[in-house]
Amino acid sequence: MLKDEIGKLFLKLKEKQPLVHHITNAVTINDCANVTLAIGGSPVMADSPEETAEMVAHANALVINFGTLNSSSFSAIVNAGKRANELGIPVIFDPVGVGATNYRNEKAALLLNEVQFAIIRGNHSEIASLAGITASTKGVDAGEVSESAFNTAKKAALRFNTIVVVSGETDYISDGEKTCCIANGDLLLTKITGTGCTTASLIGCFAGSGDNLFLAAVAGISTMGICGERAARRLASGEGLGTFKTRLWDEISLIDGDVWKEEVRLNE
Amino acid sequence: MLKDEIGKLFLKLKEKQPLVHHITNAVTINDCANVTLAIGGSPVMADSPEETAEMVAHANALVINFGTLNSSSFSAIVNAGKRANELGIPVIFDPVGVGATNYRNEKAALLLNEVQFAIIRGNHSEIASLAGITASTKGVDAGEVSESAFNTAKKAALRFNTIVVVSGETDYISDGEKTCCIANGDLLLTKITGTGCTTASLIGCFAGSGDNLFLAAVAGISTMGICGERAARRLASGEGLGTFKTRLWDEISLIDGDVWKEEVRLNE
Amino acid sequence: MLKDEIGKLFLKLKEKQPLVHHITNAVTINDCANVTLAIGGSPVMADSPEETAEMVAHANALVINFGTLNSSSFSAIVNAGKRANELGIPVIFDPVGVGATNYRNEKAALLLNEVQFAIIRGNHSEIASLAGITASTKGVDAGEVSESAFNTAKKAALRFNTIVVVSGETDYISDGEKTCCIANGDLLLTKITGTGCTTASLIGCFAGSGDNLFLAAVAGISTMGICGERAARRLASGEGLGTFKTRLWDEISLIDGDVWKEEVRLNE
Repeated sequence: MLKDEIGKLFLKLKEKQPLVHHITNAVTINDCANVTLAIGGSPVMADSPEETAEMVAHANALVINFGTLNSSSFSAIVNAGKRANELGIPVIFDPVGVGATNYRNEKAALLLNEVQFAIIRGNHSEIASLAGITASTKGVDAGEVSESAFNTAKKAALRFNTIVVVSGETDYISDGEKTCCIANGDLLLTKITGTGCTTASLIGCFAGSGDNLFLAAVAGISTMGICGERAARRLASGEGLGTFKTRLWDEISLIDGDVWKEEVRLNE
Repeated sequence: MLKDEIGKLFLKLKEKQPLVHHITNAVTINDCANVTLAIGGSPVMADSPEETAEMVAHANALVINFGTLNSSSFSAIVNAGKRANELGIPVIFDPVGVGATNYRNEKAALLLNEVQFAIIRGNHSEIASLAGITASTKGVDAGEVSESAFNTAKKAALRFNTIVVVSGETDYISDGEKTCCIANGDLLLTKITGTGCTTASLIGCFAGSGDNLFLAAVAGISTMGICGERAARRLASGEGLGTFKTRLWDEISLIDGDVWKEEVRLNE
Repeated sequence: MLKDEIGKLFLKLKEKQPLVHHITNAVTINDCANVTLAIGGSPVMADSPEETAEMVAHANALVINFGTLNSSSFSAIVNAGKRANELGIPVIFDPVGVGATNYRNEKAALLLNEVQFAIIRGNHSEIASLAGITASTKGVDAGEVSESAFNTAKKAALRFNTIVVVSGETDYISDGEKTCCIANGDLLLTKITGTGCTTASLIGCFAGSGDNLFLAAVAGISTMGICGERAARRLASGEGLGTFKTRLWDEISLIDGDVWKEEVRLNE
């Protein structure tokens, strides 16, 4: 059921070429633009507070990322997020590093008061921290949490009235009522930078292509997992993370709904 | 005629290793630096308003890009541009996303009053918007315009007393009197980010290597088209946009004047 | 002697997965994060003045890079550097482009008064300029200096009471008393951007994994040289700088202490 609809969503995306406005970090901004193009979308990365409200009006989705947050980008985010809400444009939030500093925690809390998110995507410790579930985050990557990822996804979705994606060995997608899980992925995805940020870009592309945001969340996170597996399978002896990254972008540009349906390990 | 001179310009570039100062966007800044090195130049990317006027004095060309414009980078651009004008250093302008927001339109108009450009490079809608020709820009990539690209290039060149490059399926290069077109390129060049920005880098490298700016503009835009074709021809089954990008950088580092002369489809 | 200890340091790094906080430039920030992951570390790139002092407290090393310095990043650097000093976290400084503008020279002088560095890495002209040895820097890459690189390394180490790495065809590592040199490397490493910045990342990863900072400096700079040679050896006809970069990241993700010991050309 979900599977057939997501298969069709790939076609819609290629047809619509949704414009996805990103306000993201300096580390992976190039990757986010390239992944958006690779899956069939069109990226725009304007991040000046003076223009984000105007730019987002052209977009089919807005992706917000906290990776290298500063006071300027935060203003740009708030301006764009509020305007997107007014216009009914779905907003995806990637709360990178929330839990690691008070600065990020405070800005995330402010933002959650100002902007209604369609989808929030993070690792377990980031989502737990956002939702006030006991958690400790080390830097922007690891972290330990007391709840199961399944419960964290569900609770955060209810708390913020949104769809929550918790990335990990198994990914959980919840709208507070139903919760799916995805078993695709490869450990190598954690060994290059940007696979989290670009997962949010994929989700943004799917969210900008159809009306069902839950499908978009499932499609985006699972596409990254499947493409990671496919790229890892092709690695030959003597090839490492540089080649893996190149192949991952290859796979994202080559995947279609049929490959997705064949390879996804989705538990509804 | 043009062909022989551009053939020689490749040699001059490799010999001189021109220092090309970029004030560019966060998305493709790494690509711009790598392409500058690949063609034989030397990049410097300083973008703080406090130092760009001093840094540009070392440079053989200045490349300005509006991709992720903000108030700080705009000051950096004005300071560097005015100093470059004083010193006779050619300034290349890539008006990314002009037409998409009032912010960009206003800043572009201000800049055109303050700085004399040697070469302006953009897609059709950006150049049309800059020159006040009826146009609509969607995000920073697409757009629809009423004039032919040929006429837009010519009119904008006359209006700004500069050389204008309009990138597209066919590229037009005009100084207001003569207008050339280039038929090289591949659709894949539009499917990765940064091929526009790095075309401006190539133009900057050629502009910093000789005295003829028209030749530099033709050389830069056609080099990207030719290298795109060569990279696309090498793509095997199962290879996608990640590999294409790697091969494109390969080709830019391997091309010389002889390959260029053999492969260019130039209509003088 | 040094060799055996560095062999073991590779194991420690893989085990510890040190968190390396970078405050670096926009050009190579993605490369720095990927190289940190590739060698076995964990990167965090927060660069807002409001949070760097808090973020660095989680880290095992701090890497500071002047590539695209501005007033905001300078504040972020000072805040993080002072806190790192208080906590005994080693700070690595890459004074990119020092000597090219007064702005950089002044900020570097200020920083050297405020923060005690564990290791400083730069090319000959940058280190000479920092230490007040007659030098001229062109842009951020080249430069001519009157002293031998050996002497510059030694003098700068004594002057700043630190370990100094001078990168070049031969690399010199000095603590003011003993000075080693490394003869690994390949000219291609100078033809892609970021091999200097990511060398500082490698040094940061090793510095965050053990107690001997001199070993860390030697390990970091030589690992880049060895991996550069290995990547260059694998280049086939028709492959250029794009493929070289991919292979370089491959090699950094594949190298271990045994390969290092076999390939290093170290003169103690």
